Amino acid sequence: MKVYLAGPDVFLPDPLGMAARKRAICAAHGLTGIFPVDNHPAHPGTGDTPLWLHIYRRNEAHMRDADAVIANLTPFRGPSADPGTVYELGFMRALGKRLAGYSNAAAGLLPRTRAALGDAASRDAEGRWRDAEGMALEDFGLGDNLMIDGGLHEAGGVFIRRDVPEAERWTDLAAFEACAKALAAAR
Amino acid sequence: MKVYLAGPDVFLPDPLGMAARKRAICAAHGLTGIFPVDNHPAHPGTGDTPLWLHIYRRNEAHMRDADAVIANLTPFRGPSADPGTVYELGFMRALGKRLAGYSNAAAGLLPRTRAALGDAASRDAEGRWRDAEGMALEDFGLGDNLMIDGGLHEAGGVFIRRDVPEAERWTDLAAFEACAKALAAAR
Repeated sequence: MKVYLAGPDVFLPDPLGMAARKRAICAAHGLTGIFPVDNHPAHPGTGDTPLWLHIYRRNEAHMRDADAVIANLTPFRGPSADPGTVYELGFMRALGKRLAGYSNAAAGLLPRTRAALGDAASRDAEGRWRDAEGMALEDFGLGDNLMIDGGLHEAGGVFIRRDVPEAERWTDLAAFEACAKALAAAR
Repeated sequence: MKVYLAGPDVFLPDPLGMAARKRAICAAHGLTGIFPVDNHPAHPGTGDTPLWLHIYRRNEAHMRDADAVIANLTPFRGPSADPGTVYELGFMRALGKRLAGYSNAAAGLLPRTRAALGDAASRDAEGRWRDAEGMALEDFGLGDNLMIDGGLHEAGGVFIRRDVPEAERWTDLAAFEACAKALAAAR
């Protein structure tokens, strides 16, 4: 089973080190991990295709080729997951692939959003939480936006959330390994 | 052409009013707008399906039935678009549908992320912007994460970004109408 390794891990100082760690965990469970930068032909530096589009096309090709995705949904610069990863989760769901997701933050979306908004969040006359622009806060007791939790649910996939020390948010792979185990068991 | 109207508009104080406005603009350009809450059978309040899952399944069905999507990618509680909308954009791209996106913020992702991070963003030894956790900032001169811009590009879709007065960020539909025009012209 080929597993696309989606996540903001590509923004780490050493993305190739993380790729090696994730691939080793996959291999230990009989899975083949595909990290976004894998088999990345060097961009020629010339021609009509800018680097960002080269990367986009490579990621799409990786996803179409994979059987499953493990998405790192740890909150990224806000209450929700990295948008590139979320795009990829929706993409893989539409293709009918197996999905698994994890977050190194156990708290649900509502408490995280309230923490991020601070005094800008308040209850309206009906008791619904709203931000300073009047936009409602999702309040379903889920891990992230309902499209994320819903896609994982409908695909029969796990969404594993656990707290880790703040400094290990981007390096702790226990929840990632639990996803790999779940995919291996579902094979 | 049936067009799914994705966006955090569902969180507005009057989502049905926005649905009516967007549908009217679509109709003026020969398109049929489908707002997420359309044809929403009332949740029975009993049974095994929680409301959030009922909503997820309805949104998936709307997307599979639609020919295109217009995604409101205006930054939502952070430097990037609403994650539910981004999931839906990836989903529609994988299904090979027509895509269009708009943002009522003209600035690109890098300046928006730097503004959100403030002093927490700094250049590393190679001159690359990183946040306080060492995670790199995307710097491709795009409107949002490259998966978003890339998906729109690969589908031949527009990504229309324009500034509007802050108070009209969630109500100004000029960029939305430009997307409707682009889809109608591509028909």
